[in-house]
Amino acid sequence: MPPIEIQNPQNVLDQIKWNADGLVAAIAQDYQTQEVLMMAWMNAESLELTAKLGHAVYWSRSRQKLWHKGESSGHQQVIHEIRLDCDADAIVLQVEQMGGIACHTGRRSCFYRTLKPEGWVENAPVLKDPSDIYK
Amino acid sequence: MPPIEIQNPQNVLDQIKWNADGLVAAIAQDYQTQEVLMMAWMNAESLELTAKLGHAVYWSRSRQKLWHKGESSGHQQVIHEIRLDCDADAIVLQVEQMGGIACHTGRRSCFYRTLKPEGWVENAPVLKDPSDIYK
Repeated sequence: MPPIEIQNPQNVLDQIKWNADGLVAAIAQDYQTQEVLMMAWMNAESLELTAKLGHAVYWSRSRQKLWHKGESSGHQQVIHEIRLDCDADAIVLQVEQMGGIACHTGRRSCFYRTLKPEGWVENAPVLKDPSDIYK
Repeated sequence: MPPIEIQNPQNVLDQIKWNADGLVAAIAQDYQTQEVLMMAWMNAESLELTAKLGHAVYWSRSRQKLWHKGESSGHQQVIHEIRLDCDADAIVLQVEQMGGIACHTGRRSCFYRTLKPEGWVENAPVLKDPSDIYK
């Protein structure tokens, strides 16, 4: 999908219910399989950049800076659609996951643990050694 | 799916990275279509109850109390799987959405607005009048 050329960016941003830190939750989902790949956070600048550039830009809470997903790994998320929920505090990104890996552990999805009687059990393989992802 | 009889609940809960308010983000997804239905929040008690009862129990931040999803609408979310992400601050619930409606607006999903050049545009119909949902 080409970048979304928003006619009135301020109006679009004003409709978001930003939390106390000025952030909104962003859920990335594979646009074809609908698998949920990860959840991260966006501030106003990152949401505007995501629409403008056509790839996911988050706000890193740990590093306190913009995080162009894939900038070091090459695992960009190409945007196909951006959705907003009813109370305007969560966003779904329909994305094409470049390299097929969203998680920094080398798995496809960050949600690779499932609750079983014995606890959180891994449900997905490591597809790529993390030391080969971040060089 | 029958409820999950967790052998060591404290151990399961201790692995979650609760936020400053003691909450974790919970994304509910249709277990068949994989459509993302909503995002809400859980505290430790609601997560434990969700596993134990086999239906989604959230923590309502606005009402500051447990929220048995569907308690007034009948639109329960039957749990098929509970997943945890890599940094343990987000959960995915694979659910069967009773009544077919997750959103309090009467739409299937809460993510019923899509970003277009002209702004946030509705992408899904109201299936049921909200005044008929909450009586």
